[in-house]
Amino acid sequence: MSFQPSFHDIAHLGHVELFTPKPEESLAFFKNIIGLHESGRSGDSVFLRAWGDYQKYTLQLTAARTSGLGHVALRAKSAQTLAQLAEHLTQQNIQGTWLDDQYGHGPAFRFPSPDGHQVEIYYETERFVPQGDAVPGFKNQPSRYIPSGIAPRRLDHINILAKDVKANREMFHQLLGMRVTEQIIFDDGTEVGAWLSATNKSYDFAITQDRSGARGRFHHLTYFMDSREDVLRAADVLVERGVFIETGPHKHNIGQTFFLYCYEPGGNRFEIAAGGYLIFDPDWKPVVWTQADRAKGQAWGLQTVSSFHTYGTPPVGASD
Amino acid sequence: MSFQPSFHDIAHLGHVELFTPKPEESLAFFKNIIGLHESGRSGDSVFLRAWGDYQKYTLQLTAARTSGLGHVALRAKSAQTLAQLAEHLTQQNIQGTWLDDQYGHGPAFRFPSPDGHQVEIYYETERFVPQGDAVPGFKNQPSRYIPSGIAPRRLDHINILAKDVKANREMFHQLLGMRVTEQIIFDDGTEVGAWLSATNKSYDFAITQDRSGARGRFHHLTYFMDSREDVLRAADVLVERGVFIETGPHKHNIGQTFFLYCYEPGGNRFEIAAGGYLIFDPDWKPVVWTQADRAKGQAWGLQTVSSFHTYGTPPVGASD
Amino acid sequence: MSFQPSFHDIAHLGHVELFTPKPEESLAFFKNIIGLHESGRSGDSVFLRAWGDYQKYTLQLTAARTSGLGHVALRAKSAQTLAQLAEHLTQQNIQGTWLDDQYGHGPAFRFPSPDGHQVEIYYETERFVPQGDAVPGFKNQPSRYIPSGIAPRRLDHINILAKDVKANREMFHQLLGMRVTEQIIFDDGTEVGAWLSATNKSYDFAITQDRSGARGRFHHLTYFMDSREDVLRAADVLVERGVFIETGPHKHNIGQTFFLYCYEPGGNRFEIAAGGYLIFDPDWKPVVWTQADRAKGQAWGLQTVSSFHTYGTPPVGASD
Amino acid sequence: MSFQPSFHDIAHLGHVELFTPKPEESLAFFKNIIGLHESGRSGDSVFLRAWGDYQKYTLQLTAARTSGLGHVALRAKSAQTLAQLAEHLTQQNIQGTWLDDQYGHGPAFRFPSPDGHQVEIYYETERFVPQGDAVPGFKNQPSRYIPSGIAPRRLDHINILAKDVKANREMFHQLLGMRVTEQIIFDDGTEVGAWLSATNKSYDFAITQDRSGARGRFHHLTYFMDSREDVLRAADVLVERGVFIETGPHKHNIGQTFFLYCYEPGGNRFEIAAGGYLIFDPDWKPVVWTQADRAKGQAWGLQTVSSFHTYGTPPVGASD
Repeated sequence: MSFQPSFHDIAHLGHVELFTPKPEESLAFFKNIIGLHESGRSGDSVFLRAWGDYQKYTLQLTAARTSGLGHVALRAKSAQTLAQLAEHLTQQNIQGTWLDDQYGHGPAFRFPSPDGHQVEIYYETERFVPQGDAVPGFKNQPSRYIPSGIAPRRLDHINILAKDVKANREMFHQLLGMRVTEQIIFDDGTEVGAWLSATNKSYDFAITQDRSGARGRFHHLTYFMDSREDVLRAADVLVERGVFIETGPHKHNIGQTFFLYCYEPGGNRFEIAAGGYLIFDPDWKPVVWTQADRAKGQAWGLQTVSSFHTYGTPPVGASD
Repeated sequence: MSFQPSFHDIAHLGHVELFTPKPEESLAFFKNIIGLHESGRSGDSVFLRAWGDYQKYTLQLTAARTSGLGHVALRAKSAQTLAQLAEHLTQQNIQGTWLDDQYGHGPAFRFPSPDGHQVEIYYETERFVPQGDAVPGFKNQPSRYIPSGIAPRRLDHINILAKDVKANREMFHQLLGMRVTEQIIFDDGTEVGAWLSATNKSYDFAITQDRSGARGRFHHLTYFMDSREDVLRAADVLVERGVFIETGPHKHNIGQTFFLYCYEPGGNRFEIAAGGYLIFDPDWKPVVWTQADRAKGQAWGLQTVSSFHTYGTPPVGASD
Repeated sequence: MSFQPSFHDIAHLGHVELFTPKPEESLAFFKNIIGLHESGRSGDSVFLRAWGDYQKYTLQLTAARTSGLGHVALRAKSAQTLAQLAEHLTQQNIQGTWLDDQYGHGPAFRFPSPDGHQVEIYYETERFVPQGDAVPGFKNQPSRYIPSGIAPRRLDHINILAKDVKANREMFHQLLGMRVTEQIIFDDGTEVGAWLSATNKSYDFAITQDRSGARGRFHHLTYFMDSREDVLRAADVLVERGVFIETGPHKHNIGQTFFLYCYEPGGNRFEIAAGGYLIFDPDWKPVVWTQADRAKGQAWGLQTVSSFHTYGTPPVGASD
Repeated sequence: MSFQPSFHDIAHLGHVELFTPKPEESLAFFKNIIGLHESGRSGDSVFLRAWGDYQKYTLQLTAARTSGLGHVALRAKSAQTLAQLAEHLTQQNIQGTWLDDQYGHGPAFRFPSPDGHQVEIYYETERFVPQGDAVPGFKNQPSRYIPSGIAPRRLDHINILAKDVKANREMFHQLLGMRVTEQIIFDDGTEVGAWLSATNKSYDFAITQDRSGARGRFHHLTYFMDSREDVLRAADVLVERGVFIETGPHKHNIGQTFFLYCYEPGGNRFEIAAGGYLIFDPDWKPVVWTQADRAKGQAWGLQTVSSFHTYGTPPVGASD
């Protein structure tokens, strides 16, 4: 039988490259306020990770003309699975390219989403090797928890804007095997949001409709904290450092995560989240939210702030 | 030297009487959803307390034609202080009346605020005597913590609406010795909010301007929870029971408490709060918030919901 | 190529049957103090679930002569996988039996662990259908969160005692595909503890050495709470209800979960836990704790209480 | 009528001077691990404060031959009260001395406790003036919350060892007006612990029996955190920095605070705490814990670690 992508072929969201027109300010923001740790530099990029990320990096910050998504990378569960997924994508007429070893990871297959976002799958990865102050006190932790800035534990998920949510959702679901966990479908049948997962988390990847009609834009990147109290404290840290909070802390209906959004100095939206639920049922059916559901606002009634629907990074290519 | 009211003459906020046109629904709300405990009935009133309240009751729920404040009672620190405060009020031309023993407490001096709210000071009080399931597992706790409903720890504060904030603030400050901890003063010099305290808490009593021009209205009553996480969980409980959350959870700039507001079925606004700060400095100077400060919204940027400024209970006398 | 069990063939821990010689007291404990919800009765058993469990039940409480483990059930990811796993077990000379439809789930293959614990794998399951007060306020939640008692979210894991940890670990790892996430291996090479997972959770199943030399005993069953603050509050609830806390709240080194142990009235050890970490790396290598590591106690230095090593339920068959 | 000390004459615990034989290590501990902020130096002392302390300092760290208490200072509520208390102490044959302006505060009356601890009362104080990064984002906060190290909010209380608890308790109660909130009285009538308060907090000052028979020793100093979750995270920070946790995190029966104890490098015991309860009743009667109560251990059953009863700093004079 021919290869069919299945759930867990993608192990997890691997890393995200963000463009920034203000590389120094962006780097200072992620290091000093968010509390990520620099683990390397190469070319125009600085590589960062949270204390609980096991890989060498989860965020690549690249100097560019504008903000936006450089690429998003998913780690496959094995070398064989990576090869199979790439071959299958090619058979389905997705125009991808094999890239040689990259900074911090092995060969990658890079291809465009229907919207034009750059997507990468890879398997071989370089693990973070703690040294000095980064050596953890707990054997089962990749590095020491260092209470400086907001100090999230790990990369959580990405949200991309799409002109056509359905087409993008289908790629990640049908061609990469990710599970659709929640969806927003409006009364006219338009799919305006899709949440997908490669793990037991309720989502690792979100796709939301770009109301501006643009293509390939980026909505936000999210790092995870252990408790909702951590998110509340993070809000204070941001306010005291003069960082504007777009909305939150509040609770999402979708995923039930407790969140806040802000912008990093380069203009990319950044989210801190905690909580949410895990999915164990192998037969999980997507939870569908209607137009009427969404009109009720977030979990406790907060109306989604209008900028949430309008603010996105420039489209693909704008950073060239 | 003649008696001058001083800080701590009032020991604390004692209890609050709320009118409700839907006494059964209101009682069910406070018992089943909020998790207060009934400790007695008398006439048209039911008396309730939280598990950490040491007195027999802190909330008196009275059937009436409309919602609104029945009266607010402050406990004086001693019988002598009560007598002195009452005499001093009388000397200052406040028309008060001595009431004989009341349900759950001794003689009280009742008098109107400049806005017409009924205010009571008393000293002798009946303590809650735990029996059966209410006997606490900890000697230093008035009754057992029973995890049912939201289960706040204790009465925290009241917020009354006033046509003239300054006049009302002066009464509680100058004639009762309460400390002014924070204030809102607009650019034209109008005092639109005052927070006063009888304790180390940042406030026990708040007075905010009634933009409707009405007099003697009630804004909200607040019970306290031990953690901000408790307030977040309370929000879920309210939503799952179909109770509308007016605003929050969010953090107040003033007092830095973490709060949410809802309405009890009778129409009175009810707040759950946690956090905040304590004041130890005996020479604390009121923190003054300007019109520009307030325009920035709450602590993390949430704009104060408009109903917060317009929704209040009917004025004094409407329940008669 | 013949079938080889792989990670994720088991979807998750399905349910646990506990024997109790005090069925009424045990039931009252799980309903009134822990806050589980009864969802059915059959024969000598009562079936219970937590508000976040999607299946009809996760705990089967069965009247018996003594305490102990009735059986532990794992849900396979599909009907095909269930068949393959059962066939593979049989080929490996594991003497199992197919059981017809059971209460709340479809056909199950039941077989003994090397220690004699009754283990069951099944696929078809009955989902909980919320009605009345159990209808959730959030579409993506199996039932309403009802704040009564401790109210954990869901079943988390089981810990079984074994005369031979290695032999038992190998069965769950090699024959069922579960991932070994952490281990304790003493200086003489004896494996004294193994933690296995079928999910991204750091463990779903633990096997610890029975120092008494007995076989087939049960150590504890664990339900999960959303926050560490919830575990702290649970401790108060237990103390106020007169339930002895064996140890904790404290933090495990292994899994980094925040926990407390108590005994239900029938004599089974019961754990409440929160926190911990998720594993995303598909190539996770087991974290090995040495004898010296263990001598340091739990995460913050608390020595493991001696009863933890000696107290277990009667061995298999004692309840017959 | 002559002056009689009354509750609230002492406004709050002002600051504590600790001796340390390892001044550099102690300073590094308090700054880098605990997250206090240096606000000045004078002679052999470095002055520190937490982000929520309104005074210039709350901890004076002084190089000395051994660890131990330098002095403990209480702030009186007014200049007049300070003068009255000093005069009253003198009339009661307490041999005190007036000290001129001290670092960060005005004139102080210093006198020995019955055990020989150096106690100081003062009124005039220098407030912390935030500059640069210390300027808070919230008007009602003395300085910015900077998430570095454990970052407690404020000084909470001190616990001194005493050969004669009763004699010491009587001084602070009868001569300084502090309220006795809780006590331990053994079956033979010996008072082995006393907790006193000058505020609505359940205690600001504790006195516990020195089983070694020594006099004037110091037990511990405590800083306060906003949540129990903060104390749990602090435990991780300490463990990851190699700081031994003597006991906890756990919950005290007395005061119901959630705590952990460690030692700073100079040898002084240091506590981080959160939670607890406030006292509003002006007629609060001390809660008395018996020998049997104490035998039950802490709130959730943890036995008080034996070093808690034996480890103390050298007696008064040892540092000279």
